[in-house]
Amino acid sequence: MRTFIIKANKARTSPDFKLSDLPGTSGRIDVLCRFLNSAFLLSHGFRKNVRVWLLLYGPPNPPKAIRFEGPQLKVRLNPDERSTAKLIMKALKAGEGLKEPGKEVEVYPGLYVSNRTFEDVIRLTLKNSRLYYLHEEGKPIERVSFGGNVAFVLGDHEGLSREDEAFLEGIAEKVSVGKKSYLASHVVAYVNIFLDSIPLP
Amino acid sequence: MRTFIIKANKARTSPDFKLSDLPGTSGRIDVLCRFLNSAFLLSHGFRKNVRVWLLLYGPPNPPKAIRFEGPQLKVRLNPDERSTAKLIMKALKAGEGLKEPGKEVEVYPGLYVSNRTFEDVIRLTLKNSRLYYLHEEGKPIERVSFGGNVAFVLGDHEGLSREDEAFLEGIAEKVSVGKKSYLASHVVAYVNIFLDSIPLP
Repeated sequence: MRTFIIKANKARTSPDFKLSDLPGTSGRIDVLCRFLNSAFLLSHGFRKNVRVWLLLYGPPNPPKAIRFEGPQLKVRLNPDERSTAKLIMKALKAGEGLKEPGKEVEVYPGLYVSNRTFEDVIRLTLKNSRLYYLHEEGKPIERVSFGGNVAFVLGDHEGLSREDEAFLEGIAEKVSVGKKSYLASHVVAYVNIFLDSIPLP
Repeated sequence: MRTFIIKANKARTSPDFKLSDLPGTSGRIDVLCRFLNSAFLLSHGFRKNVRVWLLLYGPPNPPKAIRFEGPQLKVRLNPDERSTAKLIMKALKAGEGLKEPGKEVEVYPGLYVSNRTFEDVIRLTLKNSRLYYLHEEGKPIERVSFGGNVAFVLGDHEGLSREDEAFLEGIAEKVSVGKKSYLASHVVAYVNIFLDSIPLP
């Protein structure tokens, strides 16, 4: 299983953004749409062995954690941004009344929303996956020996905060796909293709 | 210089598609938007050493060749699909009256439209670049020795036709990023990051 986790510090946590202006009204939920595209989609196919956590921390009701669970996902994920943004909107709508921190609401089979925090999700992920923090100053990915379940944490276009980085210290290995600062969706596309080429147990 | 060429057999060649339904009305111009995103964008940056040719072959006026020339490009390329689709729409609008096969119209500095064919563009590219055809059955990219100007040809979600492949035979080396069939935008993201890691003359 491959898990991709992105923390989006400005992403709207209410379904009140405009599909016709995602960059301007949603706190850059378009970034999350492209992230999902890279995590799950093949040409005419879908990666069933992938889980994605979108951690939305923008106004007005942070945090909201949206989980896409590949093996169970029954709703169609299309490659275009707009249709993916509609799914995120639907999940935020389903999560509007949520009060309990640990409760997850099923939006569709395989698509869930909760009030889980970044820290909650990292702790949960550590239970059965090795954790990597994708960062340009990490160890080159070709030199990392991957095995079993792997999970990757990425920042959005603004990166993780110093507090988040401090939290990951010692529990996540820093891994790099290159010295430049790449868009999250490009990094995920690279990691997926790279992992396909190495034999995993 | 890196050149990326994509042939989109169904992409509309008239600016009459809907920005609110790219997959349904444009012959999948959304694929081209993500292709441009992967070819040019870095996190908070832009690759000046990139040229993209979009070759649109859908109805009603094929072919239309749209060229994005990194070193000269003055119009802002944003990461989201919708704003990129607007640029393509603008280029198609500017190319509406074009009759001459060889004439290129400047839409903005660095953005051009013409009636050039796939074969025209390949021949032009060969004059100063080595040509590679990205295909899952090609030589693994790690085993190719790149140097100088490089150009990559890709098919859209339906792939190149048998005739196009026959035309490329002998003039383009088949290169692969993996055994799976990947989305064009993911392949371009991979190739860009891969090329960044090797020293080019």
